[in-house]
Amino acid sequence: MRISFIGAGRVAHHLARALSQHHQIIQIYSRSFEPAQTLAAQVGATATVNICEINPEIDLVIIAVSDQVIVSVIAEVQYQLTDALIVHTSGSTDLEVLAKVHARAGVFYPLQTFSRDREISWADTPLFVEAQSEDDLVLLTALASQLSRRVYQYTSAQRLSLHLAAVFACNFSNYCYDMAKQVVDAQQVDFSLLYPLILETAHKAVQHDPKQMQTGPAMRGDQNILNMHQQMLQDAQREDLKKVYNLMSQQILQSHHPQ
Amino acid sequence: MRISFIGAGRVAHHLARALSQHHQIIQIYSRSFEPAQTLAAQVGATATVNICEINPEIDLVIIAVSDQVIVSVIAEVQYQLTDALIVHTSGSTDLEVLAKVHARAGVFYPLQTFSRDREISWADTPLFVEAQSEDDLVLLTALASQLSRRVYQYTSAQRLSLHLAAVFACNFSNYCYDMAKQVVDAQQVDFSLLYPLILETAHKAVQHDPKQMQTGPAMRGDQNILNMHQQMLQDAQREDLKKVYNLMSQQILQSHHPQ
Repeated sequence: MRISFIGAGRVAHHLARALSQHHQIIQIYSRSFEPAQTLAAQVGATATVNICEINPEIDLVIIAVSDQVIVSVIAEVQYQLTDALIVHTSGSTDLEVLAKVHARAGVFYPLQTFSRDREISWADTPLFVEAQSEDDLVLLTALASQLSRRVYQYTSAQRLSLHLAAVFACNFSNYCYDMAKQVVDAQQVDFSLLYPLILETAHKAVQHDPKQMQTGPAMRGDQNILNMHQQMLQDAQREDLKKVYNLMSQQILQSHHPQ
Repeated sequence: MRISFIGAGRVAHHLARALSQHHQIIQIYSRSFEPAQTLAAQVGATATVNICEINPEIDLVIIAVSDQVIVSVIAEVQYQLTDALIVHTSGSTDLEVLAKVHARAGVFYPLQTFSRDREISWADTPLFVEAQSEDDLVLLTALASQLSRRVYQYTSAQRLSLHLAAVFACNFSNYCYDMAKQVVDAQQVDFSLLYPLILETAHKAVQHDPKQMQTGPAMRGDQNILNMHQQMLQDAQREDLKKVYNLMSQQILQSHHPQ
């Protein structure tokens, strides 16, 4: 297939490189030239910032931009791309958003967290596909299966609930690590001491029910330790961390010691 | 060394089994006989629930009980154990708590999360030792070095700050997984779809600064998605999850987009 990308961010970066193993990447369009150029060079494509230069002779266009700008991007490019299948890569944007302005609309959502300088394992990354037409759904399923062993045809509603769960499992757990680092940094204690704990906690959660794996003072209902930790955060004038500490502890306590 | 345990919970279970490779485990004392008996059978020790039966002919006693009961346990056993080195395994209990009632007091704190049915890697688990006397500190350091490559002599204050950080990095991140599971369970979506995401998030955090690795709608400042997720939790009548969602999102947003 001849594939072009709209967007040159982290998702575009990882996806274009993975797809370039099996397909021809034609163009990378982005509002800023430099990221488009960097990615294009890696996948043997050309870069452009000019909508009028978008090549319409392609089979698939992948819109990999922030949810906020998907609508405006579609509005800009749709007249150039009348025949191609156009998909977005968002967990929380409905297929409808695309389908109401373009006949051949689809979704290609990888459930993973992407960073610039880390390779991810595509074979294990769940991919969720959706399309307006049955033919395009078959096409996207085949494409996804070239990258991953875990391909699912999900509706927009199911994908939305997965994405919400992913915010808890990924974005919020990462913020917990960030807060932990702030606590030890303030005492000049090395954050790397927590690495085995972080990894073991994550590995436990994927092998057992996380609720059954809960440990710590809130789970044990140890009010003395809870009070002491709250006092420490108070003394350190970390009202932000104290708010999170209180809310999370209260909910863990209630969940494990219901009245 | 001849070592006895007070407590037969998760920490005692893992620690006694690891130490039994190098030392003789004499007794397991616990208030309930069954857990003491189970652990004792595994490490070639005898089990007891009777304080008067505690054998004083030992080198080291490890108190591995909840923080809440450390004080009462010491009060109960100190008259039986006048000469032995007594240590506790708690991150948040000061050495003083033991030292004020027993001359040879120490701390042996493993920074890890322990579950009954999972082996942990002792070699990678950071161990923090502290003792009232220099001789006992040397002894505990040597003992810890038999289990782990990462042994540190930390003060109670340093250990306390590590334990507080561990609550964020482990207990709260695990609760994030638990909440994610509740979100997908409510939609009959399989929690295992989130496994690659959970593992990748944890592995990123131990190779990079977690703040630099933050992703998601709050980090991007995507108010539309934040509003939609809040509405979904509202519609599902999950006030508890919504509170966490709002607080965490607000703090991630402020931290990445300071006014």
